[in-house]
Amino acid sequence: MKILVTGFDPFGGDTTNPAIEAVKRLPDEIKGATIIKLEIPTVFFKSAEVVKDAMKKEEPDYILNIGQAGGRFGLTPERVAINQDDARIPDNEGNQPIDTPIQPDGESAYFSQLPIKAMVDAMKNAGVPASISNTAGTFVCNHIMYQTLYLTHTEFPNAKAGFMHIPFLTDQVIDRPETASMSLDDLVKGITAAIEAIVEFDGKEDVKVVGGATH
Amino acid sequence: MKILVTGFDPFGGDTTNPAIEAVKRLPDEIKGATIIKLEIPTVFFKSAEVVKDAMKKEEPDYILNIGQAGGRFGLTPERVAINQDDARIPDNEGNQPIDTPIQPDGESAYFSQLPIKAMVDAMKNAGVPASISNTAGTFVCNHIMYQTLYLTHTEFPNAKAGFMHIPFLTDQVIDRPETASMSLDDLVKGITAAIEAIVEFDGKEDVKVVGGATH
Amino acid sequence: MKILVTGFDPFGGDTTNPAIEAVKRLPDEIKGATIIKLEIPTVFFKSAEVVKDAMKKEEPDYILNIGQAGGRFGLTPERVAINQDDARIPDNEGNQPIDTPIQPDGESAYFSQLPIKAMVDAMKNAGVPASISNTAGTFVCNHIMYQTLYLTHTEFPNAKAGFMHIPFLTDQVIDRPETASMSLDDLVKGITAAIEAIVEFDGKEDVKVVGGATH
Amino acid sequence: MKILVTGFDPFGGDTTNPAIEAVKRLPDEIKGATIIKLEIPTVFFKSAEVVKDAMKKEEPDYILNIGQAGGRFGLTPERVAINQDDARIPDNEGNQPIDTPIQPDGESAYFSQLPIKAMVDAMKNAGVPASISNTAGTFVCNHIMYQTLYLTHTEFPNAKAGFMHIPFLTDQVIDRPETASMSLDDLVKGITAAIEAIVEFDGKEDVKVVGGATH
Repeated sequence: MKILVTGFDPFGGDTTNPAIEAVKRLPDEIKGATIIKLEIPTVFFKSAEVVKDAMKKEEPDYILNIGQAGGRFGLTPERVAINQDDARIPDNEGNQPIDTPIQPDGESAYFSQLPIKAMVDAMKNAGVPASISNTAGTFVCNHIMYQTLYLTHTEFPNAKAGFMHIPFLTDQVIDRPETASMSLDDLVKGITAAIEAIVEFDGKEDVKVVGGATH
Repeated sequence: MKILVTGFDPFGGDTTNPAIEAVKRLPDEIKGATIIKLEIPTVFFKSAEVVKDAMKKEEPDYILNIGQAGGRFGLTPERVAINQDDARIPDNEGNQPIDTPIQPDGESAYFSQLPIKAMVDAMKNAGVPASISNTAGTFVCNHIMYQTLYLTHTEFPNAKAGFMHIPFLTDQVIDRPETASMSLDDLVKGITAAIEAIVEFDGKEDVKVVGGATH
Repeated sequence: MKILVTGFDPFGGDTTNPAIEAVKRLPDEIKGATIIKLEIPTVFFKSAEVVKDAMKKEEPDYILNIGQAGGRFGLTPERVAINQDDARIPDNEGNQPIDTPIQPDGESAYFSQLPIKAMVDAMKNAGVPASISNTAGTFVCNHIMYQTLYLTHTEFPNAKAGFMHIPFLTDQVIDRPETASMSLDDLVKGITAAIEAIVEFDGKEDVKVVGGATH
Repeated sequence: MKILVTGFDPFGGDTTNPAIEAVKRLPDEIKGATIIKLEIPTVFFKSAEVVKDAMKKEEPDYILNIGQAGGRFGLTPERVAINQDDARIPDNEGNQPIDTPIQPDGESAYFSQLPIKAMVDAMKNAGVPASISNTAGTFVCNHIMYQTLYLTHTEFPNAKAGFMHIPFLTDQVIDRPETASMSLDDLVKGITAAIEAIVEFDGKEDVKVVGGATH
């Protein structure tokens, strides 16, 4: 099995992005699956081209995109990506789309194809805080999740995809009062546990456990 | 113009629900539009039947569903409803669906048909904290938003629908430490301003202003 | 009985201060006690002179100073004032003392002379969120609480004093995302209930109920 | 130079306490100072006896007490301890004092004798979130800080003392949603940096930098 794991480069004034820092430190093999690591630009559409090229070249069975969600307290597999860009800040090339669809012929949303509840369980069992998130926002993170799922629904029917947000690194919050963070070691441990769940649940249904949100 | 405004009954241990309390206190007419007020049960599917019956009977031009989002700091028009029920707690009749689609033949998600950014602007101009939300959760609030939009996309093409979450009432947080709340007066003022925006933007595009979220 | 209630003027970029807005709207008599209302400047030492002049002139039995604690979720009677100024921002006349004692011959701290737990109970019974706070900070709020208690311990032995912080007004948080607030009506209702408790507990011990903090 | 560093045992339902876990992992020498490590019970008064015995036996130049402040985002040297016990929960032997003085003949409060602003600077420079706290609460943490400072002000005039709160460990928040935490490595790194500042500022004034709180 081959798993493509992507991480964004820094954006929004930060000089590091925990996503790519953690992805770079993943082992090359997890539970027998080969891990392909890829840095992608925090840029609308261009990020999707980079992912698509890697999907063509590597033919992965799974794609797990990782992105920073500054302020969150744990690792959060995303449930769904929506067909809309609405940028609160410009991306790394200055694009700031407002309320525009990503793919005019795409579905209004795509649900994650990864076993998100099993991933949460695995991360918590590994000692790392985790929970389901029901919104990936409307910036480049939602964009790449949507685009990658659009690709698995249109051009790459043998691949499955999904996205996970991760918190700030500890040293990113030195001057951000009252902001949660996590150590790089714990981020790597959590992502590794999540990937183990992906491998383990290959071909199976996700676990049916409580994990919703009242709002 | 006729606007159907619904509010849920209390759930999850609370004896009041700010949604129906605020809806009951709305004026009967806002900017010339007739306001029809309707209490609906916090129950999967049954809530949708009650709304559908009212849509048949009243033939409203707009439907605005209101629900409680305990812990939020302001009024939050929802951007999107997803085709999935995943209940963290049982509803008022004991149903607790986990990861099930709402309408097998429905779209994966429906975007609000209301001018959500104009609604946010109007509420803030009225002195009431407001912002766009990108998730209505996976409980009965998302359910009714999805169901109502499913109805406007299938059986009631002349109607438009959308959902807004509102915070706890002040007296609901007496024994909930560090939890935000709002007075009933401000809730009514905010919802009224939001409805004014709906009337004013009837037949027009929503304003194009920044209002997205990075995650 | 005579109660002097003071409220600060706006500071730190805000154009209103909920403290003086709420104080101005208090009734002139509460449970038979005469309420004297006084606006004081958000300025180190000058604020204390204004309070001292009023104490001389009015000879109040109690002094309740009110100040804004932006971000807090409820009304919080302060337990203690410490003999130290440490300003994070300049006061309204540009003073920014750092780690300096307020009164070289004063005690290291003074505890509130008001029945703070009875005040919390009274406010909660009135439907307004409230709790004890164990720090009034190190800015002008702590300063005036310390100074007023220094005066009751030195020059005005027949008077008793204490301080209460109150949250932002709702319209102060329009552009402060994820920040708690309260309506002016609820602030007035809460302060009134707290003063009722002061009157009722005159000459009595405060109630012995749980209200501490582990940190 | 000799520095006694104490950490509390677990309390309040937790099976670990980051305080003693981190203290145990400190090096035996920091910047030439000998580090004496001591576990103390989360029990009013008994904890103080254990500290006093160690002060007699070890004759430390400094005492740094460490305690858990669940929910805080960084390491927080405390500015002041107050002469009051007010337990929200029982201690580990079932004591739950409410609003009682700790030492009838003690001062109303004692300020930390440690260079708390230099400690904050050192921790931030080491990449660990830190800030001054103006309240140690009213439970055993404030108690031990007060008691140790009472001892340095009465029986041990050659010693200086102070307290620092630290956040939950990462694996303590697995089932505590939306709660900040820190890795054990970062806690140890932060405490070590703080102790380096204590050694470096021995005999000197603390740095005069902004670090106060408006409330």
